[in-house]
Amino acid sequence: MAGQTKPANSLPDLTVRQRLLVRATECFSRKGYASTTVREIVEAAGVTKPALYYYFRNKEGLYLELMQEAWKEFDALLERAQKESGAVRDRIARLLDQAFSLALDRIEVARLTYSIYYGPPQGAPFIDFDAFHLKFHEVVKGLVAEGIRKKEFRKGNLEEMSWLIIGAVNLVIELQICHPEMGVGRPGLARMIRLIFEGIAARKQEKKGEWG
Amino acid sequence: MAGQTKPANSLPDLTVRQRLLVRATECFSRKGYASTTVREIVEAAGVTKPALYYYFRNKEGLYLELMQEAWKEFDALLERAQKESGAVRDRIARLLDQAFSLALDRIEVARLTYSIYYGPPQGAPFIDFDAFHLKFHEVVKGLVAEGIRKKEFRKGNLEEMSWLIIGAVNLVIELQICHPEMGVGRPGLARMIRLIFEGIAARKQEKKGEWG
Repeated sequence: MAGQTKPANSLPDLTVRQRLLVRATECFSRKGYASTTVREIVEAAGVTKPALYYYFRNKEGLYLELMQEAWKEFDALLERAQKESGAVRDRIARLLDQAFSLALDRIEVARLTYSIYYGPPQGAPFIDFDAFHLKFHEVVKGLVAEGIRKKEFRKGNLEEMSWLIIGAVNLVIELQICHPEMGVGRPGLARMIRLIFEGIAARKQEKKGEWG
Repeated sequence: MAGQTKPANSLPDLTVRQRLLVRATECFSRKGYASTTVREIVEAAGVTKPALYYYFRNKEGLYLELMQEAWKEFDALLERAQKESGAVRDRIARLLDQAFSLALDRIEVARLTYSIYYGPPQGAPFIDFDAFHLKFHEVVKGLVAEGIRKKEFRKGNLEEMSWLIIGAVNLVIELQICHPEMGVGRPGLARMIRLIFEGIAARKQEKKGEWG
């Protein structure tokens, strides 16, 4: 493997390229993009500088690669969700579960995204996170509209209904970034989505035991 | 007024102290805390350096003051919400409306909070944002528990029910920070909260026109 100097302790099964991606994400997210040097990244990955230059050209290239890899997966989820058939409820639940699973798998990329998006300008190459987020909203809105047409959902304001759904998955991702010990997990998210469908208010003629 | 050199164009009715708070928040949130100098703040506020030193001692003091002012108000909201009486539904709706209104009034402080909280370390004095956020969760959880006791709400997982509620207000605040043109406003938030209570699923014996 090109440029390997010593095995990185905790990433024995990864290629040099993968180790660079993992360690760079950690460094960027812990110290910030601007403050992270190429030297720090290669040291953390246990490889030489030429290895980084070989695979990614420079720090910018490495950053773009690690971000685009994760966000392309998210985009693929959105594309798939639009093509599925079946009950809209189930499709929404599945999309949110997959989005959350992706964030769990790539929690350091999620953390870094928040840091770049909300943090002060750091000179990182531009990535249009808004485009992904707005597409997410469009897809969920489309699903909700379909749900209303199929009489699965009440009539209502599409924007607000879909923001409510996105708010739930955003919240569980943010919880995972900031307080993983309080995270509700995939089953918790699934129950939260069910609450969005059914509401938290008591119903007069509720069947006993259904929610207890 | 101490240290005033020229009137700041757009803040004519504010005192020197208030102008410093407003302009510092803008600078910190636009450039980042670390990159903002005392000189930039006083120039933006149209005052002299000694004015800043007089009111706040230094950049750290100014930062702490502007953050604490806003977050103390939030804390006061939480305290009030716990003491109110009446339908739990209304109390939750009121609390969220007030929290959102506060964020709207102080949108630059909200933006700066996200930047400090999610952004890379910038050397800003520590503020325990988590403590406020967890208290918010505790208060909402307490209200939901009361709602269940009073049979306003179904039995269910308190954590998840309250995260769902907080997810909605977080989302509308984040929308306001990132895409104010897409903001749903206070009426939109109120309708989203109603959706949380009632659910978005169609009901078999729904009264016609209730949601259309």
